[in-house]
Amino acid sequence: MQVEKWALSSPYLTNSYTVYIPTHEILVSTTSSHCVVNFLHLYKNMERSSSVAKRDNQNGTRPSEDQDYNNIKTNGREEEAFESIEKIFESKEVPSWKSQLTLRAFVVSFVLGIMFTFIVMKLNLTTGIIPSLNVSAGLLGFFFVKTWTKLLEKSGVLKQPFTRQENTVIQTCVVATSGIAFSGGFGSYMFGMSETIAKQSNESDDASNIKNPALGWMIGFLLVVSFLGLFSVVPLRKIMIIKFKLIYPSGTATAHLINSFHTPQGAKLAKKQVRTLGKFFSFSFLWGFFQWFFTSGDDCGFVSFPTFGLKAYEHRFYFDFSATYVGVGMICPYLVNISLLVGGILSWGIMWPLIWDRRGSWYPAELAESSLHGLQGYRVFIGIAMILGDGLYNFFKVLGHTFLGLYRHVQKNKLDSVLPVDGRPPAASALSHDDQRRTELFLKDQIPTLVSVVGYITIAVISTITIPHIFPQLEWYQIVVIYMLAPALAFCNAYGCGLTDWSLASTYGKLAIFTIGAWAGANHGGVLAGLAACGVMMNIVTTASDLMQDFKTGYMTLASPRSMFVSQIIGTAMGCVISPCVFWLFYKAFDDLGTPGSEYPAPYALIYRNMSILGVEGFSSLPDNCLTLCYVFFAAAMIINGIRDGVGKYAKYIPIPMAMAIPFYIGTYFTIDMCLGSLILFIWQRLNKAKADAFAPAVASGLICGDGIWTLPSSILALAGVKPPICMKFLSRKTNMRVDGFLGN
Amino acid sequence: MQVEKWALSSPYLTNSYTVYIPTHEILVSTTSSHCVVNFLHLYKNMERSSSVAKRDNQNGTRPSEDQDYNNIKTNGREEEAFESIEKIFESKEVPSWKSQLTLRAFVVSFVLGIMFTFIVMKLNLTTGIIPSLNVSAGLLGFFFVKTWTKLLEKSGVLKQPFTRQENTVIQTCVVATSGIAFSGGFGSYMFGMSETIAKQSNESDDASNIKNPALGWMIGFLLVVSFLGLFSVVPLRKIMIIKFKLIYPSGTATAHLINSFHTPQGAKLAKKQVRTLGKFFSFSFLWGFFQWFFTSGDDCGFVSFPTFGLKAYEHRFYFDFSATYVGVGMICPYLVNISLLVGGILSWGIMWPLIWDRRGSWYPAELAESSLHGLQGYRVFIGIAMILGDGLYNFFKVLGHTFLGLYRHVQKNKLDSVLPVDGRPPAASALSHDDQRRTELFLKDQIPTLVSVVGYITIAVISTITIPHIFPQLEWYQIVVIYMLAPALAFCNAYGCGLTDWSLASTYGKLAIFTIGAWAGANHGGVLAGLAACGVMMNIVTTASDLMQDFKTGYMTLASPRSMFVSQIIGTAMGCVISPCVFWLFYKAFDDLGTPGSEYPAPYALIYRNMSILGVEGFSSLPDNCLTLCYVFFAAAMIINGIRDGVGKYAKYIPIPMAMAIPFYIGTYFTIDMCLGSLILFIWQRLNKAKADAFAPAVASGLICGDGIWTLPSSILALAGVKPPICMKFLSRKTNMRVDGFLGN
Repeated sequence: MQVEKWALSSPYLTNSYTVYIPTHEILVSTTSSHCVVNFLHLYKNMERSSSVAKRDNQNGTRPSEDQDYNNIKTNGREEEAFESIEKIFESKEVPSWKSQLTLRAFVVSFVLGIMFTFIVMKLNLTTGIIPSLNVSAGLLGFFFVKTWTKLLEKSGVLKQPFTRQENTVIQTCVVATSGIAFSGGFGSYMFGMSETIAKQSNESDDASNIKNPALGWMIGFLLVVSFLGLFSVVPLRKIMIIKFKLIYPSGTATAHLINSFHTPQGAKLAKKQVRTLGKFFSFSFLWGFFQWFFTSGDDCGFVSFPTFGLKAYEHRFYFDFSATYVGVGMICPYLVNISLLVGGILSWGIMWPLIWDRRGSWYPAELAESSLHGLQGYRVFIGIAMILGDGLYNFFKVLGHTFLGLYRHVQKNKLDSVLPVDGRPPAASALSHDDQRRTELFLKDQIPTLVSVVGYITIAVISTITIPHIFPQLEWYQIVVIYMLAPALAFCNAYGCGLTDWSLASTYGKLAIFTIGAWAGANHGGVLAGLAACGVMMNIVTTASDLMQDFKTGYMTLASPRSMFVSQIIGTAMGCVISPCVFWLFYKAFDDLGTPGSEYPAPYALIYRNMSILGVEGFSSLPDNCLTLCYVFFAAAMIINGIRDGVGKYAKYIPIPMAMAIPFYIGTYFTIDMCLGSLILFIWQRLNKAKADAFAPAVASGLICGDGIWTLPSSILALAGVKPPICMKFLSRKTNMRVDGFLGN
Repeated sequence: MQVEKWALSSPYLTNSYTVYIPTHEILVSTTSSHCVVNFLHLYKNMERSSSVAKRDNQNGTRPSEDQDYNNIKTNGREEEAFESIEKIFESKEVPSWKSQLTLRAFVVSFVLGIMFTFIVMKLNLTTGIIPSLNVSAGLLGFFFVKTWTKLLEKSGVLKQPFTRQENTVIQTCVVATSGIAFSGGFGSYMFGMSETIAKQSNESDDASNIKNPALGWMIGFLLVVSFLGLFSVVPLRKIMIIKFKLIYPSGTATAHLINSFHTPQGAKLAKKQVRTLGKFFSFSFLWGFFQWFFTSGDDCGFVSFPTFGLKAYEHRFYFDFSATYVGVGMICPYLVNISLLVGGILSWGIMWPLIWDRRGSWYPAELAESSLHGLQGYRVFIGIAMILGDGLYNFFKVLGHTFLGLYRHVQKNKLDSVLPVDGRPPAASALSHDDQRRTELFLKDQIPTLVSVVGYITIAVISTITIPHIFPQLEWYQIVVIYMLAPALAFCNAYGCGLTDWSLASTYGKLAIFTIGAWAGANHGGVLAGLAACGVMMNIVTTASDLMQDFKTGYMTLASPRSMFVSQIIGTAMGCVISPCVFWLFYKAFDDLGTPGSEYPAPYALIYRNMSILGVEGFSSLPDNCLTLCYVFFAAAMIINGIRDGVGKYAKYIPIPMAMAIPFYIGTYFTIDMCLGSLILFIWQRLNKAKADAFAPAVASGLICGDGIWTLPSSILALAGVKPPICMKFLSRKTNMRVDGFLGN
C-alpha cells in the first residue's frame, strides 16, 4: 500500500498504517487517502513520463496507451522529493475569495450532493460501510464544470475560467452535503429511535423511548446541531495548518488530485477516468434496473442468490450480485475485506451454529428468531463489545498521540522551532517555494475570531432552547454540558485527524450515549436521551475534523479559507435539508426498512439503540453466557489492536477487530461482494499496476454511484405502487417438487 | 467480410458471398472459411508487420502488444499478391507419407475427437446449429503435440520434430471423427426413427416405422456406409485439385492456418491464442458447472431465465445464458445471426400468436400443445417448407455452377489451356514456385485407382447385404440403386463444394427421404425406409466433399495424399465408434432427450421424421391453411434467394431463408445468445479490429468447447443419479404469492 510510504514521513506515524484501519464510520476519510494517494503518485509520475513520451514521439513511433502506463510504472518506482507544484501554476492568477464562490459551483454541488446523499443513504441502510466518495465527487465535479465552461467558451459567453480553487469549493461543498447523510445518523442513532427498531430490541420500547422519523423535527434538529462544529474550530486553523503543519492525509491527497486535474496531462487522464466512470455507472445502473424485475416478494431476485448452496445461504454466505459492494471492495484496502471475511466465517460459520446447538440451555428455544434474548442477542451484543473494544483502544491511542504531539509542539516552541512537528528538516519546510506561496495566500483572507465565537454561542443558545422541544427527554442543562465540552473534543478530533487521518466521531458519540443515557436514567426516557446526545456530539465532532481537512485542501490549492468556510456552511445547510428528504423517501417507499433480512436492514440502528439500552439498563437483559462472551471479545479487540501496533509491518496480516465485528450481526453476503472487488483489483494490479491504480477508483466509483442512483427510481417506483413482475425464487429440490405439485393442480 | 474479397478472385464467384450462406448443416464448412480466412489475412500481414516491429526495436523503444496489432491493421489494408510460402519452408524436409502418420498424431486425434464429438452432439441435440470447429481443432492439435514434443525435446528423447504435415494429419483425423457425429444423424434421421419422436408426430407411429437407438446397430450401420464416400472420389483428386484447380475455400484456409502455425511468428500468435482459448474454456466449463446446481426440475435454472419478462419467455424470447451459443454467434457471420433473429421475431413474435388466435377455427382448440395437428404442425411444416425451398433453390444453383464449370473445362481443354478455370492468368499459376513444388509432392505418392474401385465395390456389396438386416424396411435393390447413383452425386457435391465451399449433403439426403420413402410406400415402413436411405446418402456425399477439402489442405501443406487418405479412414473409423457411444451416453443420461421444451429437444429429429411422413403420406395430415402457408413460405424462400443473388453486394442486408427457418420450430432463445455473440464481436472489432480478428475465434472456441465438455461430467452425474440440489424458479408476482402462502403452511 502506498499509504505506508506516505505515512513514514512523519515520526509519529512510523506505525501509522495500523491507524489506517477503516471502521464503518471512519471509512469516509481513511479509504479516501488510500486511493487518492494512488492518484497522487500517478500524477507525480505522469509529469516525469510525459517527457519520455515526447522523446518517443520524436523518434517517429506512436507510443501506445499501454506504453504510457508502462513508463509510469517503470519511472514511478523510486520516491523522489516533490517538485514545486506552485511553479507550474505560477502563470495562473488566483481569483479573489468571492469569485471562487460561483453560482455554477453551487448548482453542481447541489446536484452531486443529492446524488451522493442517495448513495450514502443506501449504504447506511444496507450495511453501514461507507467508502470514500471524494474521488468520484472530485471527478464528477471537474467533469460537470469543465463541460459547462467548454460549452460557454464555444458560445463565447464564458466570463470566468474554471480554476482549481473553484474545484476545491465544489469538492468541499459536496462532501459537506453528503457528510450529513452519515452524521445525521439515519442508519444509526436517529433511526434507532424509531418504533421499528424499538420493537426488535424488545426492551425500553415504551412511548417515552420512541420517536418516529418525521421530516420536520429531523431537519430542525440537524440545522441546530450541524453548524456548531464549524465555528468551534475555525479560530484554530492557523495553528493546525501553518504552525503545527499537520498532514491531514485525506485533505492533502484531495488537493493533489485537484491540482493534477488542472495540469494539461492531468486533465487528459481525468477525462479518461470520467469516461471509465461513466461506463461503469451505466452498467451498474442498468444492472440494478435489471435485478429489480425479479424481486417481487421476499427472498426473491439476485439479492437472495444462494451462490454457494442453500445451506450456506441460510448462514448468510452468498454472493448477492450487488455492484455497490463490489465497488466498495475495490476501494477498501485488502486487509479490511479480509478482516470482514474472517469475522463472517468466525461468527456465522462457527460461533452462531455452536450457540444455536445450545438453544434450550443457553436461551429459550421457543423464542422468535429476531428476539434479543435469543441468538440475535449474542449476535448484536458480541458485535457491540468488539466495536467498543476497538473504539476505546484507538480512542486512547489517538488521544495519546494528540497530547504527545501537543507536548512536542510546546517543547519545540521553547526550542525556537528547531524541528517542526512533522519531522521534515526545517530548512526544506521553511524555505520551500510552495509553502511560502501557500502560507501567504492562506493568511490573506481572515475570518475574525469574534465571528466564530459569536457564531458558536448564538447557535449553542438557539439549540439549547430548541432541542428540548424536539426531545423532551434531554434536559437543557445536559445540552449545555455537551456544548461546554464539545469544543475541546472537537479540537482533539481535528488534531488527531490531522495526524492520523482518523476521525473518532462515532466513538465520541458512543461516549455521549453512555454518559447522558445513564444520567437521564431509564424512567426518564434515557434511551432516547442517549441517542439524541450522540447525535449532537457526533455532528459537532465530525464537521470540525471535516472542515480542517478542507482547510488543508484549500491551503494546498490556494483556495481562500473564507471560501472554504462559506462553501462548507452552504454545503452543510443543503445537507440538512437534502438528507432528511432522501431518508424520508426511503422510509416511505420501503415498508420493511430496518427489519432484519430485508433489503434495507439498517443494522447500526439496532446496534446503537442497544448500546443506549445497555448504558441505561445495564447488562441484566443479556442471555446466558452472553456477557462472558462480550468480555472475551472486548478484550480480544484490544489485544489484537495491541498486537497490530506491536508487530510493525506484519500488522497487514492481522485482521482488524472493528471490521471483523461488522458481519457479526448482518451476515457475510456483502463481504463476499467486497472480497470479489478485492480479487478483481488484485488481478488487475498484477496485470497492469499503473492502469489499475489510475482507473480502479473510477471503476469502483462508477459501480457504487450507478447502483446508488438506481435507488432513486426504485424508491419512486415503490412509492408509486409499481411492483416488480417476476420472482426469481430458489427452492431446494424437495420443496420444488412440492411446489410443482401444488401449481400443477 | 473478408470472404468477399477472397471470393472475387474467381470469375464464377463474383456473387459467391451470396453462396456463403451458412445453413444449419452447412455451417461446418462455410463458417470455417469465414474465420479461417481472417486468420489467413492476419498471417500474411503479420509477416510484413514483423519487419516494422524490428525496425522499432532498433530505435530502442519497446513496441507494445497493441502497437503490434495496430501495425498489422495499418499495413494490412491493401491486398497484395501472395508471397511464396514454400520458399519459407524450403529448408524444412518433407517427411515420407509413413512418417507423417505418427502414433502421437492419432492419440491426440482420438482425445480431441472425443471432445469434439461431445460438442457436436450437444449442438445436434439442442438446436442443430453446428459452427466450424476447425480452428479449435487446429489450435488444440498444435498445442497438444507442441507440448508433447517440447517435453520430449527437454528429456532428449525426441525422435521426430513436429511438422506441418503431421498437423494436417491430426486436423483431418479430428474433423473426420467429429464429422460422423453430424452425418450420423443423431440429431436428425437416426434419432427421428425412435419412439420418442414418433409419438410426437402421431402419424405412422406403428412398429414398422419405429426403430429405437441401440449401440449395436448404430455402430454397424455407420461402419458399412461411412467409408463409401472416401473411395468414390479418391480417383478424382488429381482432376479436382491439379487440373481444375478448384479453390476449396475451407481447405485452403485451414492449410494457411496450419502453415502459419509453423512459422516462428505464427507459432507465437498460436500460443497466445491457445492461452486465450484455455481461459475461456475454463470460464465456460465452470459456468456450466455453476448453472447445473440450479437446475433441479423443469423450467429451473439459468436456461429458463425470463430475461425479457415472463410474457416474452412464454413466446420463447429470452437469453438462456448459454456460453456455447454466445460462442457460436461470435463465429457465425453477422447476417446469419440477424437472419435467425428476424426469423424468430417473424414466427414466434407475429405468426404463431396470430395462428393461436384462430384456434378452434383453423385447428381444434382442445389439442395438446405438442400435437402436429395443432399449432405445432404449423411450426414444423412451415419450417420444413422454407428449408426445402432454400435447399432446392441452391441445389439447382450449385448444380448449374457445377455443369457450367465442367463445360468450361472441356472448352478450355479444347483451347489448349489458354485460361485456367480459377481465372488467374496462366503465367502466374503455371509458373508459381509454390504450385510447382506442391504439384510435384502431390503426384509423388499415388493411390492406385484399382484400390478405390475394389474398395468401393467391396464395401457396397457388404453394406447391401448388411443394411436390410438392420432395416428390413429397406430392400436390397433400393440400396443398389443408391450406390449406383451415389458416385455421381458425390462427385457433384465435391465439385460444387470446391467452387462454392457449400456442401449440399443434407439436400441430397432429403431427396433420398422423399424418393425412397415414396417407393417403399406407407404400408411397408416407408417412413423408416426414407430415413435410412437419407443416412446412406448423406454419409457418402458428406465424406466425399470432406475428403476433397482435406486433399486440398494436404496439397498446400505438402502432406501426402496417402497420409490424408489413411488419416481420414482412421478418423472415420474412430468416429463410427465414438459417436454412437457418446449419443448413447446422452440417451441414457437424459430421460427427456427429444421432448420439446426440454434441455435437449433435438429439433431436427422431428423435422426429418415429418419430412419422411410427408413424402410417404402426402399432405393429408396437415391442419387447415397449413399447406397454403407452406407454399407461400416455400416460394418466399426461393424468391428471397433469387433477390439475394440479384442485388449483388446488397445481399448482405437481406436475411437468409434457411437461417430464418431454424427458430420457427425451436424458438428464439438461442438466437438471442448468438446475437449477443455478434454484438460482442462487433464492439470488439470496433475497438481493435486486428486483435478481435486474431482472438475472437479462440474466445469463441473456448466458450463452445468448455460448455460442450461440461456435458460429459453432467451426463455422468445424471447417469449416477446425482441430481442438482437447487431450483432457480421464476414465478409471476401472483403465483409467487400463492406459492408463499402454500409454503407458509
